[in-house]
Amino acid sequence: MTTRVTIWNEFQHEKENERVRSVYPDGIHAAIAKGIAPLGDFDVKTATLDEPEHGLPADVLAATDTLIWWGHKAHDRVSDDVVERVCHEVLSGMGLIVLHSGHFSKVFRRLMGTNCSLKWREAAERERLWNISPSHPVMAGIDEYFELPHAEMYGEPFDIPTPDDLLLISWFQGGEVFRSGCTWNRGNGRVLYFRPGHETYPIYYDPNVLRIVANGCDWARRRLSRATDACPNTTPLEPL
Amino acid sequence: MTTRVTIWNEFQHEKENERVRSVYPDGIHAAIAKGIAPLGDFDVKTATLDEPEHGLPADVLAATDTLIWWGHKAHDRVSDDVVERVCHEVLSGMGLIVLHSGHFSKVFRRLMGTNCSLKWREAAERERLWNISPSHPVMAGIDEYFELPHAEMYGEPFDIPTPDDLLLISWFQGGEVFRSGCTWNRGNGRVLYFRPGHETYPIYYDPNVLRIVANGCDWARRRLSRATDACPNTTPLEPL
Amino acid sequence: MTTRVTIWNEFQHEKENERVRSVYPDGIHAAIAKGIAPLGDFDVKTATLDEPEHGLPADVLAATDTLIWWGHKAHDRVSDDVVERVCHEVLSGMGLIVLHSGHFSKVFRRLMGTNCSLKWREAAERERLWNISPSHPVMAGIDEYFELPHAEMYGEPFDIPTPDDLLLISWFQGGEVFRSGCTWNRGNGRVLYFRPGHETYPIYYDPNVLRIVANGCDWARRRLSRATDACPNTTPLEPL
Amino acid sequence: MTTRVTIWNEFQHEKENERVRSVYPDGIHAAIAKGIAPLGDFDVKTATLDEPEHGLPADVLAATDTLIWWGHKAHDRVSDDVVERVCHEVLSGMGLIVLHSGHFSKVFRRLMGTNCSLKWREAAERERLWNISPSHPVMAGIDEYFELPHAEMYGEPFDIPTPDDLLLISWFQGGEVFRSGCTWNRGNGRVLYFRPGHETYPIYYDPNVLRIVANGCDWARRRLSRATDACPNTTPLEPL
Repeated sequence: MTTRVTIWNEFQHEKENERVRSVYPDGIHAAIAKGIAPLGDFDVKTATLDEPEHGLPADVLAATDTLIWWGHKAHDRVSDDVVERVCHEVLSGMGLIVLHSGHFSKVFRRLMGTNCSLKWREAAERERLWNISPSHPVMAGIDEYFELPHAEMYGEPFDIPTPDDLLLISWFQGGEVFRSGCTWNRGNGRVLYFRPGHETYPIYYDPNVLRIVANGCDWARRRLSRATDACPNTTPLEPL
Repeated sequence: MTTRVTIWNEFQHEKENERVRSVYPDGIHAAIAKGIAPLGDFDVKTATLDEPEHGLPADVLAATDTLIWWGHKAHDRVSDDVVERVCHEVLSGMGLIVLHSGHFSKVFRRLMGTNCSLKWREAAERERLWNISPSHPVMAGIDEYFELPHAEMYGEPFDIPTPDDLLLISWFQGGEVFRSGCTWNRGNGRVLYFRPGHETYPIYYDPNVLRIVANGCDWARRRLSRATDACPNTTPLEPL
Repeated sequence: MTTRVTIWNEFQHEKENERVRSVYPDGIHAAIAKGIAPLGDFDVKTATLDEPEHGLPADVLAATDTLIWWGHKAHDRVSDDVVERVCHEVLSGMGLIVLHSGHFSKVFRRLMGTNCSLKWREAAERERLWNISPSHPVMAGIDEYFELPHAEMYGEPFDIPTPDDLLLISWFQGGEVFRSGCTWNRGNGRVLYFRPGHETYPIYYDPNVLRIVANGCDWARRRLSRATDACPNTTPLEPL
Repeated sequence: MTTRVTIWNEFQHEKENERVRSVYPDGIHAAIAKGIAPLGDFDVKTATLDEPEHGLPADVLAATDTLIWWGHKAHDRVSDDVVERVCHEVLSGMGLIVLHSGHFSKVFRRLMGTNCSLKWREAAERERLWNISPSHPVMAGIDEYFELPHAEMYGEPFDIPTPDDLLLISWFQGGEVFRSGCTWNRGNGRVLYFRPGHETYPIYYDPNVLRIVANGCDWARRRLSRATDACPNTTPLEPL
């Protein structure tokens, strides 16, 4: 069954910064689109901040099974209307994968209900991601651990609600740990937070990272389209 | 140890409706304050919608261990600033008990990240609340079940994240069920949703209901006052 | 992808009791096998208590993706060796669906770590099962609720660990409630407890019941075959 | 309120091995008893493997609010009767703290339902324990992290059910991570697994370790004494 994936990228760094552009010449969204294409039956579209409605009008969301979210420096420029629309669609059944610095996006914070803060450091250090849930569908094909030679550190405490499933814990060379793969149900939708990513380290070319993103697209995919915001007055099913 | 409780009530029904006033002449907040007083070591204050800043300026929240929230017909009149302040304080460590129709309050929906919708019916029917977690501190002193002879029905599906602990499931005469006692961690704070309550049925005089609210005040009480919204850049603890 | 299902039935009632036999002439296992066949891509086998090794030698389990378990009056006659083998296989990745009175089976109690006790009553009363997780794969195709006209009552408290996902809550005519669909991860395996069933009420001919069992077979299916009982001594991955 | 604590130690190493005896001359149980005494209102008793019924007859367990369990090399010598008795008491309401190598005890594995296996290495390496749940009662008084200069490594995957609360994640010098503080409800009892400990490293003199054990004794303490193994046949509460 084809999974309709929309990859959203704020797409600012790549236009403004030569170093970022050299790593992701067509944008992070394009690299992810290309990277996951051979890993599943995906119909992939992309959308970016500078498009009208950020490229996420209602009909695009309605035709999306899983939305991938990358943002970093322009969280505040995402309009509240689009945030509300995306969250409504997740609660109605659309899957959502939030990547790396998306932890501080309006969409993720709104769906979690917490601040989603964490520690960070840019020192190109080694990260080792331990597979805590080897039989979870999102971890299919992933060994006991994998390594990223140069990563931005994200450290605990990570201010999130207790995940329904904890998939990955990262070890960092500098001494920190992090819950790097976490899932939650929200309404009829599934949410996956996946830590790896960066605008200048070539994380989205790593085969393990791409495998997990691809698995996540299938795992989180829409199973229903049913809004959860009615509060119906109902008649009794039994005699009173 | 004294628990500092602030009971917030929108306090509209009681001023506008003779029938409500006859049940709660001094307001629902006053009835709860009086009802829980003998059940613990509480320093109880109250606050209402029509007060400046809805009675919840920063210093009041900072001096509150557990905030109780009742609202019904005026959710939209609670200012977004106060909502933000209350949520910030919960994430920093203050406890929160949300009662009955507070399921649709801005504060609860913001902390849950979901729509918090449900089914409802006002038919004065019988409700039987089954104690699912008899050893949980919030259930101390509660039997296997208790009954409310005349209750408003709330029915599933209730659009909430999976509770950390499910304490009570209600059986309704008209054929529905409901998760009537649910807890969640949010940041450094604890949240309890407790279903019973109504503006014209005398629910807040019921000894089991008052016992659970009192237990909840102690269980949810502030244990820390530490904001979770910094996102600190940190130096490594190990040589890189 | 074909799911290899083994349906285990103690198969005692049907041989001893004319009334049971009139409902399930070839045994409950045969009725379930026939009922789920058209609902998915299943390769179904059956096994029963009186066979050698209860029909569950190691090679049968190794070739099973999901095992369905029905037992009622002969839990004690299941050998501890077979119980250990089944549990080992679940922890290694095989899915398990425990039906109705299987709550008191050795296998289920061993995997839960609790007593798994509950209330019960045989009075042919009405049960209404509310769908708490409409977007969960096990609930695919199930409406907001469904009813069983004549059911044995199972009531809370049900002594189980907090389920990872709560799928169904039952309302009973006699005044009780029950968590009727619950899931847990155990090692590399997935466990579904599903309440409906009885030896003389024709529950396993009900289309909603069969749909959920069939969905469960796919949801719980083996994703790995990897034992979790080694406790390896390992060399460091970083210089010490 | 006084918490009645029983500290169980298999007490073999200390009698057989001079090096262990030099660290814990009166046994690990005695060191813990002395260490937690000033940290709470505790009535502490101890019990060991070589005593009749391993020092855990029914009346001792009935008078215990929290049982601490240390075992390492003699798990198999704990009689199944005592294991059953301890588990029954936990399910009936007694708290349980399982330390370090107790992960492989019969009691812990029986209550978890999983194999409880893990990786390990004895290399006296550095461990840094990150506080994931700073407002949890068991973490009271614990900073963002604490370090143990020389620890035995325990690494993921740790074959346990998803914890209700995850309190600590360990970073190890050699490159692994571990869920070092985990809680579960089981029946009416609370279970805490706490990783730190060793027979030759002086872990049970560390102030952070002792603080967590002491906090755990209060957090897990018995709140009820009610068995959960009856399966009562009950009469309806509503007319059928």
